[in-house]
Amino acid sequence: MDQTQNDGRALRRLLDELGRLPGIGPKSAQRIAYHLLEADAEEARRLAEAILDVKRQVHFCPICFNYATRETCDVCDDATRDRATICVVSEPRDVSAIERTGTYHGLYHVLGGVISPMDKVGPEQLHVKELLSRLASGEVSEVILATNPDVEGETTATYLSRIIKPLGVRVSRLASGLPVGGDLEYADEITLGRAIEARRAV
Amino acid sequence: MDQTQNDGRALRRLLDELGRLPGIGPKSAQRIAYHLLEADAEEARRLAEAILDVKRQVHFCPICFNYATRETCDVCDDATRDRATICVVSEPRDVSAIERTGTYHGLYHVLGGVISPMDKVGPEQLHVKELLSRLASGEVSEVILATNPDVEGETTATYLSRIIKPLGVRVSRLASGLPVGGDLEYADEITLGRAIEARRAV
Repeated sequence: MDQTQNDGRALRRLLDELGRLPGIGPKSAQRIAYHLLEADAEEARRLAEAILDVKRQVHFCPICFNYATRETCDVCDDATRDRATICVVSEPRDVSAIERTGTYHGLYHVLGGVISPMDKVGPEQLHVKELLSRLASGEVSEVILATNPDVEGETTATYLSRIIKPLGVRVSRLASGLPVGGDLEYADEITLGRAIEARRAV
Repeated sequence: MDQTQNDGRALRRLLDELGRLPGIGPKSAQRIAYHLLEADAEEARRLAEAILDVKRQVHFCPICFNYATRETCDVCDDATRDRATICVVSEPRDVSAIERTGTYHGLYHVLGGVISPMDKVGPEQLHVKELLSRLASGEVSEVILATNPDVEGETTATYLSRIIKPLGVRVSRLASGLPVGGDLEYADEITLGRAIEARRAV
């Protein structure tokens, strides 16, 4: 008889659900499950609540499509941010990565993906139209294209620079220095910070 | 402004709670949190429910102190298991590890720890008394001491063999083959299975 049966379906189900999380293999799932079994009920309850709350309270900012808990996100809300610069990223997690560098003080625009013909994602599937509306106000003087330095990211940046430059807005790209083929999310703060400072015109 | 603020307290709290789990550093916590934000609400709800259910439904078996969802655990419940052999382990997760080998068909006894004077854990803090009561029935002919092959595990095994042998019960220890100083939980099935088969009398 397998221990999975031994612990009943409750533990089996927890192992299954934990195993769906990124970077969690069967051994990690088991380690976490046993940790939760050994932890006091309060700790387990807090984790479960935090998971539910994040889904209940977090939605997309209607301006930049970053995650927000109030009507708009904290970056868009923040009057001290430089409203003349928009940094375009693929995912909300990239906003996190750039914020951690402390180097950037402008606004963001989250595309919600990258152009990828293989996955049938074109500009229509991304928040490109909304980006163009933001530029139409004339308030924005520079757009930093901070998509990942991989094939899809470069394709997306090239596409965006072609449609944005005719609007008379300066377009820049994060400086090389990021390892090509790498993932923006995993860059260390210093490398990413320098890449932002040394961004080049496209 | 930090992105943690940006996402509001809900995400910060989820990151904190995930960071408490074993083997989850800040980067893993963030990866998991963003995965949950991107996942459909149903997946997040299932994970939260699984965490709560496991705490609600799983308790300790009153016979062997393994985890159980019914009154006693599935091993104790299973009429096909060999009731003449008890395998003594430190933690319920060790039961899992041994069950996965498919090599062992007897019962278990979970001590709930190991003797460790440094941590002020003596035999009184472990389920040793309950083990001795089980042996008093005369039904048990062999006790396998399957504590970890580290200092505390060996100390605990030596202590138990000294008090069990006078009762006329055969006492054995998992065969060497497990890397000394290692952790039983991480042994691969084959190594652990062989160690069970080649267990030596103490």
